[in-house]
This record gives sequence, structure tokens and C-alpha cells, in this order.
Amino acid sequence: MNPYEYAEAHREEFLGQLKDFLSIPSISTLERHAVDIQRAAHWVAEQLDAIGMTSILIGNTKKHPIVTGSWTGAPADAPTVLVYGHYDVQPVDPLHLWVSDPFTPTIRNGNLYARGASDDKGQVFTHIKAIETLMKANGGSLPFNVKFLVEGEEEIGSENLDNFILTHKDQLRADVCVISDSHNLALDRPVIIYGLRGLLYMELEVSGPSLDLHSGTYGGTVHNPLQALCEIIAKLHNDDGSVNVKGFYDNVPAISKEERKALNAIAYTEEEWRAETGAPQSWGEKAFTLRERTGARPTLEVHGLFGGFMGEGSKTVIPTKGTAKISCRLVAEQDPYEIETLVRAQIAAIAPPTIRWELRALSYGWGSVVPIDSPAMQAAIDAYERGYGARPQFLREGGSIPVVATLRKIYGIPVLLMGFGLPDDGAHSPNEKFNLEGFYRGITTLIALYEKLGSMKANELNKR
Amino acid sequence: MNPYEYAEAHREEFLGQLKDFLSIPSISTLERHAVDIQRAAHWVAEQLDAIGMTSILIGNTKKHPIVTGSWTGAPADAPTVLVYGHYDVQPVDPLHLWVSDPFTPTIRNGNLYARGASDDKGQVFTHIKAIETLMKANGGSLPFNVKFLVEGEEEIGSENLDNFILTHKDQLRADVCVISDSHNLALDRPVIIYGLRGLLYMELEVSGPSLDLHSGTYGGTVHNPLQALCEIIAKLHNDDGSVNVKGFYDNVPAISKEERKALNAIAYTEEEWRAETGAPQSWGEKAFTLRERTGARPTLEVHGLFGGFMGEGSKTVIPTKGTAKISCRLVAEQDPYEIETLVRAQIAAIAPPTIRWELRALSYGWGSVVPIDSPAMQAAIDAYERGYGARPQFLREGGSIPVVATLRKIYGIPVLLMGFGLPDDGAHSPNEKFNLEGFYRGITTLIALYEKLGSMKANELNKR
Repeated sequence: MNPYEYAEAHREEFLGQLKDFLSIPSISTLERHAVDIQRAAHWVAEQLDAIGMTSILIGNTKKHPIVTGSWTGAPADAPTVLVYGHYDVQPVDPLHLWVSDPFTPTIRNGNLYARGASDDKGQVFTHIKAIETLMKANGGSLPFNVKFLVEGEEEIGSENLDNFILTHKDQLRADVCVISDSHNLALDRPVIIYGLRGLLYMELEVSGPSLDLHSGTYGGTVHNPLQALCEIIAKLHNDDGSVNVKGFYDNVPAISKEERKALNAIAYTEEEWRAETGAPQSWGEKAFTLRERTGARPTLEVHGLFGGFMGEGSKTVIPTKGTAKISCRLVAEQDPYEIETLVRAQIAAIAPPTIRWELRALSYGWGSVVPIDSPAMQAAIDAYERGYGARPQFLREGGSIPVVATLRKIYGIPVLLMGFGLPDDGAHSPNEKFNLEGFYRGITTLIALYEKLGSMKANELNKR
Repeated sequence: MNPYEYAEAHREEFLGQLKDFLSIPSISTLERHAVDIQRAAHWVAEQLDAIGMTSILIGNTKKHPIVTGSWTGAPADAPTVLVYGHYDVQPVDPLHLWVSDPFTPTIRNGNLYARGASDDKGQVFTHIKAIETLMKANGGSLPFNVKFLVEGEEEIGSENLDNFILTHKDQLRADVCVISDSHNLALDRPVIIYGLRGLLYMELEVSGPSLDLHSGTYGGTVHNPLQALCEIIAKLHNDDGSVNVKGFYDNVPAISKEERKALNAIAYTEEEWRAETGAPQSWGEKAFTLRERTGARPTLEVHGLFGGFMGEGSKTVIPTKGTAKISCRLVAEQDPYEIETLVRAQIAAIAPPTIRWELRALSYGWGSVVPIDSPAMQAAIDAYERGYGARPQFLREGGSIPVVATLRKIYGIPVLLMGFGLPDDGAHSPNEKFNLEGFYRGITTLIALYEKLGSMKANELNKR
């Protein structure tokens, strides 16, 4: 049986397994799900074992385990492929907006709904099934080596991943890395991501009184910490939509004419943006198009605000403190540690003497840009043509996969960002889904990719 | 037995009853405590029955019941006293900061700790016990008429009280009203409040996207609702600490030289303020002293902020909306309905087209000023001298008791604001307490007040 026929014949079985994977609520940011994180890690390890990986490790980190599994029985000059993915998922709140339970995978209209369906359980699972398929079709061996690296902290900044890779540098060494944690523009418009932003995640706490005060007695004499927090946050952007942090743009390269052309090749109108977001009008740096703003520019976002009385009705309190969750998406040239220093300095310059404040960095991730002219990248282009019947477009992406920068730095290898999701997957929203056609096309695409890579020599992949 | 001896002899009994009252978690703003509100209302009605009130009503409103009880057996020209108080209390969060359970009244260092101990269960209870005492000492009758009006919505804006008073205008008619819901400067420094601020409570919701968005995909193109909320709130104050709402100060009278002198008669230094609040530095309208800011100036405060990801760790979401709880404390001359219109107009002027917003008013209360030269007020001064051994000082207060304005408008009667709490009672904070010495002195003071009022004719009280 050729591999495409095998994959076709096992669709229902693969789907059933994916549903099992999605049933585990492996939310990495919530302590109470620590046991589910363990379950998900073991589930991945068992899968890797079942498809024939010979060396499996559930590596302990300071937080959540990293699962690796490899098969390295290929000839000496055969290439080694590293597959990266993550088994952890985002929180599910607001839960009441989910049509079906986030951890009871449910099919509606050709989509599989569950937290993690698209980001990233469903997508990393396409690799496991593609390798299984090729193993079966080749009688239990492969013409290339394969190594899996599946972590459980991607959604909380991958803080222990870099150190793990460094301490397992030789075991994880590869000639090319493939990551599926992104989306195409449509089922017939595949995309290869060649640029990713870094991510610096912080928490800003503004405090004042040492106890909750009655606003009737002290209002007008206390700098309300919630008001002060708002004042600081308001000052972190300029009126033109740019980030008001001194030095923030110093290392951000100008977008070249060619890149500008490439980025804007696919039209993206205000109307399309409105239909996708539901917001009344777009916002942001006026000097850049919508695609440029998310693809090639750094940003600063507020993800959460909380403090004081948050219940129903009214309470006239001046609270002791207020907190904001803030992140910066960074371009490849920006150093997240340096940006933290700049943000801290800016807040120090803004913050009045009437309040206290504390800025806590929760995670640091580097952005990256991958060259698009390697033979490995050509194999990816060809694979999409086989799987999707269309030539992929190259896009910079606004999101962050910090491991890309790490792999580029340590091994200097091509990293192929080949996603199978769709723009409306709702990766961090209620009702996350994975289109089943995308799931099956993804497996086909990866079989084609791996067949092609397996026909090449290790030293050919990164030639230019 | 004279009344003072009776009160002295029944201290333990009164304290035990107060503890029962304080054990009922009658939090008016939380729906889940609706049954406790009912229990507290019935508890008050039973007390009024027990002390000899002959006409008791638990009046239904659209929300929480209003309890009235009266005894009107005095001679035709005797005065009628209206006692106002409230049996509802503030929420208790943050609960973990309470040393003892907020609804398990506990005595430590001569203080009774419980939510509502000072605001207002403990204080309204002093009236019930003073009237009981006088009834007992007078063989079951009084030389004046008395009417109680005890509501359950004071902490949520008393929204049904005005209508209740209007529809029971004749039943509640009185010659003087006494309210104990404030505090003295110290155990030997009694205070009569003659000015109260009004209160307008609002909720501002800023929304944008129709679903939670991934900040990597849409950050930099969406006007983040949390950021926009902060920008709007930041613009509601000027750099000099004044409220930036057009027309906000139009009806605020200048403070006269005399009033300025009276307000600042009691020193209040930055150091005292810091010791009380724990905040690093005072804030507010630079043209006014700390006492003036809270006593004679209107304010705008943020009581709560919430939106987006509020859990531990990190989540990179652009949320659909953010909400702020906001109130304005108003001076007597400001119309809360007009101020709502002005705030709405200001937000409309500030709000950008990139977001949607909604301002919901939750309650409206008028401020008030009570003349300090009536014979009834002189009786209050004398009563404090009897109960506290010191002449009371007159202060404007930053807090709000909207019923004062209502009673002044409907009946034009003197309203005596005679508190028995202390500045550090923590009325809306964790570890609220009522000083037991204040409790007993309060009862003594009220016995003296009522004896004096009972010796006067109804038409003498409001003479100038």
C-alpha cells in the first residue's frame, strides 16, 4: 500500500486518536491542570512509541515536561528532520461562549471543535500520523531520521525550552525543522510563514493605599491606583498608534520595497478586517498597512485588567492596587530582554510619585526570519502543491514561536513553518476548531514533504 | 431606674443582640444574599416590635424591603423624631484580609469586628436601644413620637427610598430626623456632620472585537478595548487633579472664607494622611487643602476595572471588552442626573471611532447641607456634651447619605447627623469594627438627645 492510500484508509482511526488527545485539558498556565499536563505528555510519548520511535524521553523541566522521540536508523548521509510542536493549550474562559464543551471534541460542519484542535494538538498530530504512515508503507523504516520535540509550555512562553535544547544539543541535532502551528489563508490558499515575532510578556501592578479606602472619606486626596494604572497604560501609545517607549523602534528595520510588495500582495481590505474582527474600525500605526502592522512591526498589547470591585452592582471603594497583563510582540531584530529594560524605564519616567508600581516579566521570546531560498523550502513548496493543489504564499506572521529563533541560532538550519489551520480557527478564543479537510490535507502534505526530504542528502537541504 | 442606669445595666444584653444582627450577611449588592437581606429586615422589625413600636411595616420595594416602626402616643404638641438607618452592608472582599470572619462578630481590644459593625448596623442599633431604654424608664411611653425608617439599599444607592418616602409621606412626617452613620474624630472629639456629598454611580463598558482575538494575528490593527478604556479614564482627570468633564464644576460654589476656616480648623497634615492611607503621597486638586478636597469638592473615582485575562500566568488575547466602575461624589448644588449627562457627553467627545462604549448609571444621590443654627441642632450639641464630655465640631463629610437631601426637600426639617464611629473603623474595608466605648457613649448621647427633644414643643425645633 502506498502511503497516501494508507493515510486515506486510516482517516477514522486518526480522527478518533486526535479526539482522545483533545479530551485532555492540558492548560499550561493554570496550576490546577498540572496533572492534565502530565497526562498529555504521557499520551504523546505513548503515540511516539506506537508509531515506532525507538528512543523516547519525557524530560523534566522546572515546570512542564518536554517529550522527545526519535528514529535514527537511516543511512549515514540521510537527512535528519526535527518536528517541533506543543501539547499544551490556552485557557478556555469565557467558558459560557463555547457551543460545546472545550474538552469534549465535537464535529460540526466538517470542523472538529475543541481547545487545542488547531493550536497545536491537531497540527502536531498530523506529523505523528504522517511518520506512522511512512513507517508502515516502508516496512518499519524510513529513508531519513526523525526527531520529535513536543513541549508543554508554548502557551506560557516556552521558558524552559531553550535550556532543554542546549542541554540536549546533540540528541536533537537535525538538518531541517518542520513546525505546524500556523494557518493558511483558505483551504485552497496555503501559506508558508517565513517571519515570526518575538514575545515579551509582563504584568504591571500599580498600588497606593495599604488598605481599601472609602471613596467618600478619601476620594480626591488619594491617587486612585486604578486611575493611575489607566494613566500609565494610556501613555504607552502615541496618538498615531505607535508605541511610546523610548528606543522601542531603534532596532526595527525599515521594510524594503520588495518586502512591502510581498507583504501586501494578498489584498486585505478594511471591510475584510471588519468582518473578521467585528470591531467598528481598524486602528494602529497609520504609516503602515494592516498586513505590515501585524507582519513586520512590533506592538504592545493589554491582555487583562483587574482591580477593585469587579462584582455586580456598586461598591464605593478606593482599592489598594490594580494590575494589567501586557505583552510586546517583537520583530526578529529586537532583544526581548532589552525591550523589558526600555519598558521599565518608560514606566519609571511616566509613573507619578503618588503611587507605587512593579513590573514583572513573565516570559521572553525572540522573533525570527527564515530564508526562503533553501532546497528544504523548495521541498515544502512542492509538498503543498501535492497536498493542496496550490502553490503556497510566503507571509510574515504576527504570532510568536520562540523556538524558531533558538533553532536558527543553535543549528542554523532551515525551519519550515507549514500550517494547516484556517484564519477563523479561534486559536485563543472560545469555539476553537480544526477543519477536518485541513487535517487530512496536512497529513498528505507532510507525507509528500518527508518523501522528498528522504530522497535528498543531509548536506543538500540548506544549500543556496 | 433612670434611663442612663438602665442602659448601663443592660450593656451585655445590648451587645449580644448587636452580635446577632451582625451575624446576618445582608450584602445588598450581591443577589446571592437576597435571603439574608430578608432575614435582616425581619430581625429589625422584630426588634422594633420588642421595644414597643406599635405600627410596624416591612415595606416591599422593587429590590430590598424597607422596615418602618413607630410609636405615636405622645401629646399633640410633642415633636416627632424620625430615625433613619440601614441594615444592608458592603461586600467583604478581599475576604482573605479579614482577621476574623466578617459575619462572626468578634471582640478584640475593645472593638467589635464584623462587616456592618460601624456602617451602619451598630450605629442604627444605638437608636433602637436608646428608645427601648427611654420606654422602660418612662413606663412604656415617651414624651415624643418616634418613627424608624431602616432601609436595605443604602450601600447600592438607595434607589427605591425616595419613592417609598413620597408614597408614605404622611406616615413618615416628622419634625426632626436623626441619623447615625458617620464617625467622630476620636473618642473625645465628637463631630456633627452638616454637609454631605451626593453620589452618582456608573459603569463604563468599552468593547471592540466581537470575539477574543489572538494578539499575534490582530495586535497592532485592533484598538484594544482595555487600552481604549484606560485612555478614556485617563482623560477624565486633568493634570492638576481636577475632573475633566465639561461643566462639572459649573454649580460648585466657591468655598467662603468662613467655611474654609471652619473646614481647616482641625489640622490635617500630609503625615497624618500618609499614616491613615499608607499611600506614598497625597494627590488631588492643588488649589484645595486635603480637608477641602474631601469636604467641599466633587470627585470622580474608579472603583473597579476588569476585562480580558485575569488569571495567573499569561494569555495573549485581545479581549472583546473591558469595564470600569466609576462614581462621582457631588456637592449639594450638583444635580446627579445632570452630571450623568455631562459625563456621557465628555466620554462621547473623548471616545474614538475605533471602539464602542456604553455608560450605565447604577444610582443617583443628591448631596446636602444642613443649617447648623436650629434649636434641634443645639439639642444635639448638648447631647454630645452629656455623652462624650466634649463639645462637637461641625464638619462637612465626603461621604453620601442621599436620604438627607430627600428629607430636607420633602419636609424641610433639621437632620442631625450624629455619628459614633471612629476614623479607622474601615467602613468599606476588611476588618470593619465598632469601638464598644463609642457604642455605649452613643446610646447615652441619644438618651440625652431624646430627653431634650421630648422636653420641647414640635414647633420649636426648627426655629432660627
